[in-house]
Amino acid sequence: MKIALAQLNYTIGDFEENKAAIIDRIIRAKTHGADLVIFAEQAISGTPAFDLLNKVDFLNLCEDALTEIASHCDELTAIVGLPMQDGRQTVSVAAVLQNCAVKRYVGKQNISKREESWHLSPSRGCDYITVNNSKVAVVVGEDLTSGLSVGEQADLIVNLDANAYCRGVIEQRYERLRSTAFTNGKPLAFVNQIGGQSDVIYDGSSAVFNSRGEAIALLKSFEEDFAVVDLTARNKPIPLPFQDKTYNVYRAIKLGLKDFFVKNGFRKACLGLSGGIDSAVVLAMAAEAIGPENIKVLMMPSQFSSDHSVEDAVQMADGMRVEYSVVPITEIYTSAVDTMKPVIGGTEFDRTEENIQARIRCMLIMSLSNKYNYVLLNTSNKSECALGLGTLYGDATGTLSIIGDLYKIEVYDLARFINRRREIIPENIILKEPSAELRPQQKDGDLLPPYDVLDAIISRMVDQGQSREEIINAGFDAETVQKVYSMILRNEHKRYQFCPTLQLSARPFGRGRVMPLASKYGF
Amino acid sequence: MKIALAQLNYTIGDFEENKAAIIDRIIRAKTHGADLVIFAEQAISGTPAFDLLNKVDFLNLCEDALTEIASHCDELTAIVGLPMQDGRQTVSVAAVLQNCAVKRYVGKQNISKREESWHLSPSRGCDYITVNNSKVAVVVGEDLTSGLSVGEQADLIVNLDANAYCRGVIEQRYERLRSTAFTNGKPLAFVNQIGGQSDVIYDGSSAVFNSRGEAIALLKSFEEDFAVVDLTARNKPIPLPFQDKTYNVYRAIKLGLKDFFVKNGFRKACLGLSGGIDSAVVLAMAAEAIGPENIKVLMMPSQFSSDHSVEDAVQMADGMRVEYSVVPITEIYTSAVDTMKPVIGGTEFDRTEENIQARIRCMLIMSLSNKYNYVLLNTSNKSECALGLGTLYGDATGTLSIIGDLYKIEVYDLARFINRRREIIPENIILKEPSAELRPQQKDGDLLPPYDVLDAIISRMVDQGQSREEIINAGFDAETVQKVYSMILRNEHKRYQFCPTLQLSARPFGRGRVMPLASKYGF
Repeated sequence: MKIALAQLNYTIGDFEENKAAIIDRIIRAKTHGADLVIFAEQAISGTPAFDLLNKVDFLNLCEDALTEIASHCDELTAIVGLPMQDGRQTVSVAAVLQNCAVKRYVGKQNISKREESWHLSPSRGCDYITVNNSKVAVVVGEDLTSGLSVGEQADLIVNLDANAYCRGVIEQRYERLRSTAFTNGKPLAFVNQIGGQSDVIYDGSSAVFNSRGEAIALLKSFEEDFAVVDLTARNKPIPLPFQDKTYNVYRAIKLGLKDFFVKNGFRKACLGLSGGIDSAVVLAMAAEAIGPENIKVLMMPSQFSSDHSVEDAVQMADGMRVEYSVVPITEIYTSAVDTMKPVIGGTEFDRTEENIQARIRCMLIMSLSNKYNYVLLNTSNKSECALGLGTLYGDATGTLSIIGDLYKIEVYDLARFINRRREIIPENIILKEPSAELRPQQKDGDLLPPYDVLDAIISRMVDQGQSREEIINAGFDAETVQKVYSMILRNEHKRYQFCPTLQLSARPFGRGRVMPLASKYGF
Repeated sequence: MKIALAQLNYTIGDFEENKAAIIDRIIRAKTHGADLVIFAEQAISGTPAFDLLNKVDFLNLCEDALTEIASHCDELTAIVGLPMQDGRQTVSVAAVLQNCAVKRYVGKQNISKREESWHLSPSRGCDYITVNNSKVAVVVGEDLTSGLSVGEQADLIVNLDANAYCRGVIEQRYERLRSTAFTNGKPLAFVNQIGGQSDVIYDGSSAVFNSRGEAIALLKSFEEDFAVVDLTARNKPIPLPFQDKTYNVYRAIKLGLKDFFVKNGFRKACLGLSGGIDSAVVLAMAAEAIGPENIKVLMMPSQFSSDHSVEDAVQMADGMRVEYSVVPITEIYTSAVDTMKPVIGGTEFDRTEENIQARIRCMLIMSLSNKYNYVLLNTSNKSECALGLGTLYGDATGTLSIIGDLYKIEVYDLARFINRRREIIPENIILKEPSAELRPQQKDGDLLPPYDVLDAIISRMVDQGQSREEIINAGFDAETVQKVYSMILRNEHKRYQFCPTLQLSARPFGRGRVMPLASKYGF
């Protein structure tokens, strides 16, 4: 049997485009003489569609598209994913198209993703179809992970998925596919979505494994791809590629940011370039994704900014040919403090005055955004979000955060990766000590331990869900752990209002971690 | 049989206090000679606890508390709700305590709340226990709504719940309880949580219905309460009280706001008082909830503010004896526009300059908040949130929104209710035409239809999920519907960053309505 795998970048609710792309690949599969062509889970609708999954007209549009797609399936079988109405509920199904008609629906049983558990109901799970006298087990999404055993019933396992990228997932997924193929002793074809969808990034990485658990086809990661595999031929095993963590993060962010713009119809981006590492990395990634000619940056120094900050920022913008303006905030700052004198006059300089600076910057960059339709990119990292170091309505703003799910040390990794061929980010920005520069001589290290320690503690608490005791037992200083732990708990309300963040880990803030806003637990 | 109903205000994760309150009511039930005392679902933990429900130490603390509570159940049976570990999953159970020990757990089967579907797994559902030779059916939460039939097996149905307030829910719930008692021909005791928890408000309204579906005990709404009912006595039926929509909203907001402060350890609140209806209602409600002496307001007029705005605001603050300062933003505005001249100079006055004013106000009120630990209350309403009329990082800010789930016309209803005895909100504020006052002579009605039309369209789309066609078919102007519809869709990203909002409807923005940030659907 000859099978085709179509790994496509869909847009949620863009039924015309999604349908056209699917039909195009069906035609291509036919020209290759394929018996079967496989698309991803929820290909017709795009995913995650959230509440749209429970709108009858959205589901009707899916079905209309399916009918038209089916009309092209004369010589071959196609398996296409879509959400479908099932009584009063919505289920995720694989539609099996044969002889220009819908032959069968195979539903998904295991609903474990937070994106879906509100909207999808469990269906019956794995089922079997016949393609050219071969028995094919069709499995949707996570059903594959729940100890699938197809026994003698199948000659081939087909898994349609919409499995998002997060650090380490590609290796884990290959291993899961390998072991499922091996333990069942059947070849396995896996087709995933690819593309950025809101804050979720699908990496593709579709694949075919033979019955010995060897890869015989590997589709690209973070790009659309198409492959035809003749299962009856002698297919040479392909070694699984080495997965470089930083390279994958780089590709994920680039894809996620680009698709966020394309799918929203956005063109231009702006950000504040401080001379620090975070905004430098955001600028470099934005230039990769949407082109330096579509970006404008503002340098907004205050009286507390060091000379090198603006210099480094200007050097970077110049080097990248990115448009910039230097807009000092000193005058507005003075005017704001003067205006508030009747209310807060006579008090000591504290976080209030620090936050005023950050909020003035937000106001200025947003005026650029509003006037010329630049989309503001946020420049916060995950360490900052965890500890609440950013200013609400100040630097914790933007239409999209692209490094908000990266710890500070990972931001440095990404910076070095960006500079792998030539110095895009001035070396001085990477080497200097991190500082918010909101008061004289301020350094991040003044009140906090070094970022390698900090990030390790945060990651244990947030990503691994460890308790204070577990972290202390792992060898971290008890006082530091307590301090970090309570900073994380106390700043839940800041994260509640944080902007949409490209998800790069299994535990992103936002949907990945939801805490009550008023609780005594942990305090 | 004599049963006691304990309707209590728990705090999430405050095991000491929750446990103490439960034990106190057990002792009180014993002094009344009760055979059975009933507490709400997830009483020991408080709810919604979100991710805490999947933390082993959180669940262990629940179990520790339960053990201690059980030790007080010598002469009577207690039924107490808590979350419990069940293998690798968490379930919501009713623990049956008899003879100073845990006799049985009855789990919840139907998990339908968005707050819980990520964290709770279905358990076995309704089960039976024996109390003084009577058979009691124990049902947790929504299991009661799924067509419960206890047949001859039970002499009494007990339903533990944590059922949040939303408009109309109290009437619906009484009706459900009535019909369940009547169709089963058994008395039914219902115990609900009461209290504000993050953005959720539980109204209590626990009740006992007899086998003819007549209420024989009604506990208070929006307050803690305790009642003992002798089921063997001749209990006179109690007429169900009239539910005044605005009065209930008033009590819900007051309770939600008060508990948000108490449970977070907050004491003081601030807000910007514009002279408009929204901030006036927020101020009045805040004064009701936490006392006028704990509030400070700022009037922040610009050159576009009309004279009456500050006058009306000052009159209201004076009348309520609320501390205030008048801080004109004209100087900062000029300074901001001057600073940005190199970037946006020479352009026409547009939403940019409007937003600058709103963002300056945010910066100023937040400086008051930061300096003296005032919690900023948001003043946006649901109509504004739906259409995206507010300014991100401007007036769409705050630690809590208390009227963000009320349509503009409901804000007027609430204002009139607040003034029912004496003029707390100056009449002029209620009577004047709504205006953002961000440009000369601006009125809300300039670009938008009247709020009664607007709110009807929004409510049909958001609360009832109607399509454009359905709304137009209902008699609304097609162009207006299209305009409102696309404004709602376009402003999803603003709502994403909106502050926590007290939930007063079945479809609050936030968890109640989740849409993709990039989608072609509906455009």
